[in-house]
Amino acid sequence: MSAAVGRLTVIGVGLIGGSLARALRAAGLVDEIVGCGRGKANLEEAIALGVIDRYTHDVAQAVAGADLVFLAVPLGAMRETFATLRGALPAGALVTDGGSAKGSVVHDCRVAAPELLGRFVPGHPIAGTEKNGVGASFAELYQGRRVILTPLAENDPAAVARVRAIWEACGAEVAEMSVQHHDEVLAATSHLPHMLAFGLVDMLARLKENDEIFRYAAGGFRDFTRIASSNPVMWRDICIANRAALGPMLAAFADEMNELAARISAADGEALLAIFERAKAARDRYVDGLK
Amino acid sequence: MSAAVGRLTVIGVGLIGGSLARALRAAGLVDEIVGCGRGKANLEEAIALGVIDRYTHDVAQAVAGADLVFLAVPLGAMRETFATLRGALPAGALVTDGGSAKGSVVHDCRVAAPELLGRFVPGHPIAGTEKNGVGASFAELYQGRRVILTPLAENDPAAVARVRAIWEACGAEVAEMSVQHHDEVLAATSHLPHMLAFGLVDMLARLKENDEIFRYAAGGFRDFTRIASSNPVMWRDICIANRAALGPMLAAFADEMNELAARISAADGEALLAIFERAKAARDRYVDGLK
Repeated sequence: MSAAVGRLTVIGVGLIGGSLARALRAAGLVDEIVGCGRGKANLEEAIALGVIDRYTHDVAQAVAGADLVFLAVPLGAMRETFATLRGALPAGALVTDGGSAKGSVVHDCRVAAPELLGRFVPGHPIAGTEKNGVGASFAELYQGRRVILTPLAENDPAAVARVRAIWEACGAEVAEMSVQHHDEVLAATSHLPHMLAFGLVDMLARLKENDEIFRYAAGGFRDFTRIASSNPVMWRDICIANRAALGPMLAAFADEMNELAARISAADGEALLAIFERAKAARDRYVDGLK
Repeated sequence: MSAAVGRLTVIGVGLIGGSLARALRAAGLVDEIVGCGRGKANLEEAIALGVIDRYTHDVAQAVAGADLVFLAVPLGAMRETFATLRGALPAGALVTDGGSAKGSVVHDCRVAAPELLGRFVPGHPIAGTEKNGVGASFAELYQGRRVILTPLAENDPAAVARVRAIWEACGAEVAEMSVQHHDEVLAATSHLPHMLAFGLVDMLARLKENDEIFRYAAGGFRDFTRIASSNPVMWRDICIANRAALGPMLAAFADEMNELAARISAADGEALLAIFERAKAARDRYVDGLK
């Protein structure tokens, strides 16, 4: 399956969209890259950086003549984007996306542009930094990173294979799973940790004397809370998009923390040690697995 | 106030105790360093590394002729150590410690060796790594790090000044606060984050298909969970020692997470955005403060 793309349209030219554009350009796999978005300054920067060749603010114009359309808009803007794509997408063009939750994006497509479902291969590159915007994008972002595709029953297998080949050409390791499984896995490994980091920092910031508290935070605190510097709007969208998986998981975690608080207050050393040993073993196994 | 120490006795020659020994040796402030502990291999390693000059497993022998005794044993071993010090500590010798909770250590001293309270200046160097043992110690560990002293009403101000001077000679920035305030600040900035990291990793490790879940964890997860690789026995001791401050704080956090879970399930974007924005602002301010 060839990864060559004649004309690539990137809707939402930020870190994720810009990095895909850069990677495919670096691999010599695209003839032309069209950017689409709302912010003129960001799109001008994308041109200045050589990430895109031209841009328009109009989705229908942007996808004219496209072979592949990459949706990298915030989750909260997906439905409207699908609605605009409806009737504008050229015959034969494929659509994929980079959204961090997949159930909501598939639902948006189903509601706003059901006839596109066969050509929309949902995807999620598990990559990113705390930075935003095309200025943060780079061609190597996806090298050695995982990309999850969640193919739909409506998808042509050849369309899935093509999207897979495109991500592999960017150096990514591609896996496939169901939409629901993706959303559960990501709730556990990404969305839940972000809630804990945001929630912890918010709680401490609301304590009296919070300046003093932060002053005595040690090195581990900096690492632990790094993800609390992530984009609040993006995370609001992710929470809402994946609320079906995330809400119950966060509530379950809260129950665990109440249980742990009770063990601590009861000075139940045996139970505490069992929890900490299990966690350390799992964490060390996980890090060994990354080596 | 001179930071010179004739004979230093370090009880518990690990990362914290070994690093103080190395720092004072490097500063040319000690004549002799005596190590004391249970593990022969670790103490032999401490001699081989030049961290201590000699060792004994007997606390009373170890403190004979000492000018300063540094207690760097686990919190769970403090009371027994104070009991052994009773009657053995030479007149004029000072005692300080490196425990991560202060209320419990002071209580242990009060219970096991009340006549030593005047010469025991409780302290806590906010430094450390996920590694243990004397092999992980280094002279620069305390440079630029904060050390909190929690002087007691019984302490001679000159004793407090001397312990302060010793830490400052190691490059640390010394602050003083009450025992209770220390324990609250540390519960918030260190003990609570460790509970979240241990609890999250433990919860995920108990899910079905946890290998797969960890496989899709992104870069942020690694940073977020680093502290879950910390020593389980040490953390059991810290939890129990600081349960008065930590238990209620963790329960309050669980309540916050339940509230957040409810907001997510209700797709309350406005409330979510407010939380995430407040957290991001506080976290960015904190990091700016470190620069």
